[in-house]
Amino acid sequence: MTGQPSRRHTIAAGLAGLAAVGGVGACTRALGDSDADKAANPALEMCLPGPEHTAREFRGPRQAGIIEDPQSHGAFVALDLATTATRDTLRRILKVWTDDIERLMSGRPSLTDQEPELAASPANLTVTVGVGPRTVAVAGATAPAWLAPLPAFPSIDRLEPRWSGGDLLLQITADSPTTVHHAQRRLVSGTGDLAAVRWVQRGFRDPFETAKRPMRNLFGQVDGTVQPRTDGPDDARLWVGADGPEWLRDGSALVLRRIRMNLDTWDEADRGTRENAVGRRLPDGSPLTAKAGSGPDVPSDLSATNSLGFPTIHEGAHIRRAAATAAHEVFLRRPYSYDDSVGSTSDAGLLFAAYCADPVRQFVPVQQRIADGDLLNTWITPVGSAVFAILPGARDGEILGQALVT
Amino acid sequence: MTGQPSRRHTIAAGLAGLAAVGGVGACTRALGDSDADKAANPALEMCLPGPEHTAREFRGPRQAGIIEDPQSHGAFVALDLATTATRDTLRRILKVWTDDIERLMSGRPSLTDQEPELAASPANLTVTVGVGPRTVAVAGATAPAWLAPLPAFPSIDRLEPRWSGGDLLLQITADSPTTVHHAQRRLVSGTGDLAAVRWVQRGFRDPFETAKRPMRNLFGQVDGTVQPRTDGPDDARLWVGADGPEWLRDGSALVLRRIRMNLDTWDEADRGTRENAVGRRLPDGSPLTAKAGSGPDVPSDLSATNSLGFPTIHEGAHIRRAAATAAHEVFLRRPYSYDDSVGSTSDAGLLFAAYCADPVRQFVPVQQRIADGDLLNTWITPVGSAVFAILPGARDGEILGQALVT
Ligand code: HEM
Ligand code: HEM
Repeated sequence: MTGQPSRRHTIAAGLAGLAAVGGVGACTRALGDSDADKAANPALEMCLPGPEHTAREFRGPRQAGIIEDPQSHGAFVALDLATTATRDTLRRILKVWTDDIERLMSGRPSLTDQEPELAASPANLTVTVGVGPRTVAVAGATAPAWLAPLPAFPSIDRLEPRWSGGDLLLQITADSPTTVHHAQRRLVSGTGDLAAVRWVQRGFRDPFETAKRPMRNLFGQVDGTVQPRTDGPDDARLWVGADGPEWLRDGSALVLRRIRMNLDTWDEADRGTRENAVGRRLPDGSPLTAKAGSGPDVPSDLSATNSLGFPTIHEGAHIRRAAATAAHEVFLRRPYSYDDSVGSTSDAGLLFAAYCADPVRQFVPVQQRIADGDLLNTWITPVGSAVFAILPGARDGEILGQALVT
Repeated sequence: MTGQPSRRHTIAAGLAGLAAVGGVGACTRALGDSDADKAANPALEMCLPGPEHTAREFRGPRQAGIIEDPQSHGAFVALDLATTATRDTLRRILKVWTDDIERLMSGRPSLTDQEPELAASPANLTVTVGVGPRTVAVAGATAPAWLAPLPAFPSIDRLEPRWSGGDLLLQITADSPTTVHHAQRRLVSGTGDLAAVRWVQRGFRDPFETAKRPMRNLFGQVDGTVQPRTDGPDDARLWVGADGPEWLRDGSALVLRRIRMNLDTWDEADRGTRENAVGRRLPDGSPLTAKAGSGPDVPSDLSATNSLGFPTIHEGAHIRRAAATAAHEVFLRRPYSYDDSVGSTSDAGLLFAAYCADPVRQFVPVQQRIADGDLLNTWITPVGSAVFAILPGARDGEILGQALVT
């Protein structure tokens, strides 16, 4: 992802957090120590802020975890509310989550945390909370029309219930898998009997990714090039505005598709076939209509033709099927690769996460064109699907979902 | 891990590798480009060596992946030889693996690699190859007596066949999960029909780990403190010497135990109980017999008693049960955490990997004392177990297992 403002900043989060917890001797002591003491006592060094202490901002009109640089590890966790859940139940969950997420994102343990040491490395942790249709009904609020399962795409979908749906979503992403693990446990156990995990999907991106070294997915493709602007101009595409329900103002929508990528048959395709299927080159992600080596950021030219008069970018090429045909057909892609293969056959793919203000209007037409004739369909299969309303951010003094449950 | 010589060095591996592959336009071109070109063309930057291009040495008398700093991501892959396998089959596999591993570790694609771009980030990749008893028999060689399943520890073991045994082992560890994934696919598919995957176990350590910021396992404990010296003095404990079979000289043994850690019941134990169970403090890993805050590296004093005359470190404390009672009871621990939880109940633990010259003599007595009365047993359960002979390294011109199959 390029051109977006970074909200990263390093804080002495671990120190503050550990200092607040009884019995965390070494690190409390480190705070008051002289340089001489530190030199004499190597144990203290493990308390000093390092790269793992970088924290992102929790408070604000919009939730974190959407437009900032994606972290290297992620878990998407869906929960179902207990059948007896009420508006009050929901408020209790959102209150606990707000408090816990604010603490965890700043490197402080949650109140009931028995492993404060694991909380001390936020590693850019963000936790982004979403709700499904049943949760909105439980809250007695009106859901936007798009908050429902996507229409079926029978030509491609092979959806499994175990990767689909859900009443609540936690998108937990950080630059350390231990941090993701710990936050997930604390937040899930924080719901007690009020909610139960429906599914967990874990994924990764490349830890060395930067704007100049883009992510590659497991097909080896440069992925995530063409994106909406996240610094203002496309805000109306990304965030729910005045035309949406009041409780969702400055929220968003998440479409999460679990898309299996058949690495075994992909291996059998030659590189020409592969590049043709997407419309971009494998080495540098340049569009087939630009000079080889010009990199992913050069715009593609869908009208270009070759010497025989055929389109240079195939009618079924993914970047043609997926390209916006109207200004509103945009969404932010923030995918994670997954690899759950346990045998010789691959079980891997993409946790395809797309954010926008209205998936039915902005996302579905694109998904439909892909379903109708994308060359990539030979190798990719959607096996899970879910849509969540991403709550607005929590401003100072507010809880997440404030306008939904109070 | 502390005090060991680092074999890391940065090479322009990605460049060399990509340049050797036809059609990798952007990066081949980058090599010859002037600074002015580079400034004008941001795409070139993705070809320049970055942290993901750090490579480790493949060639040498001993295999890599044992005594160097552990990387943040790992996959342990066991394969079974086809029932029809012969010595010749085995030689073919080891020849292909030698070539592929040497290439992959230096950031070059394997010969049949269709995704050279994914090979271009070795990210400290090491691949360490081991063999099980059946493989030695197929080679017509004599196996050391210890190359067999460990004795049963009925008081604690709940072993599942799906995590146990195997004819061949690949330990694939790197600082990027994409690199681990790619190497695994290439090496597994390189065996064709000659071998099939038996199990895959994936794990992680903390990406920000250093000698001064030690790994924490999922119980939140500082783990990996007391270790043999890897810079010479303990070589006879780590590497097979003249008393072992000729084909295994400078090889080693790997004991891999998949140990489930019950995070749910661990959560219910208070911090005093937890620290007592190990004999070390949670915040800084200091032994209970040293001053709080003194850090993990201070030696523990197993003879110390408290004011009531009871041992300060409990009779059942893990560091008492596990401590060497004879000079030869040492092994190198190089564990990875795993978290495969998909519901509200945890399915997580440690891929406990221990290296030594003779597991029966060095490892089993320690494991026996743990089985007989370790306080940690309340929360940990071995669910998988395997022993492999780790082949010697491949010197220049040799293949892995040279002395076994030629
Ligand atoms: C496993 C499945 C998928 C793979 C491997 C994949 C891969 C790619 C690649 C390599 C590109 C070109 C580089 C870029 O702009 O990021 C791309 C572009 C894009 N993809 Fe996908 N994609 C997948 C699924 C989807 C789905 C399900 C959608 C939406 C329904 C989608 C929407 C887009 C869009 C909008 C673009 C930019 C098109 C443009 O050039 O305007 N992709 N994808
Ligand atoms: C999930 C299971 C396990 C956990 C959570 C665990 C955790 C720990 C911790 C926290 C320490 C103290 C710090 C250190 O020196 O690393 C330790 C030490 C040690 N552990 Fe484990 N351990 C486990 C299993 C095992 C097993 C199966 C063995 C061998 C059979 C073992 C052998 C050792 C040894 C030799 C030490 C150093 C003891 C000393 O001399 O102080 N551990 N372990």
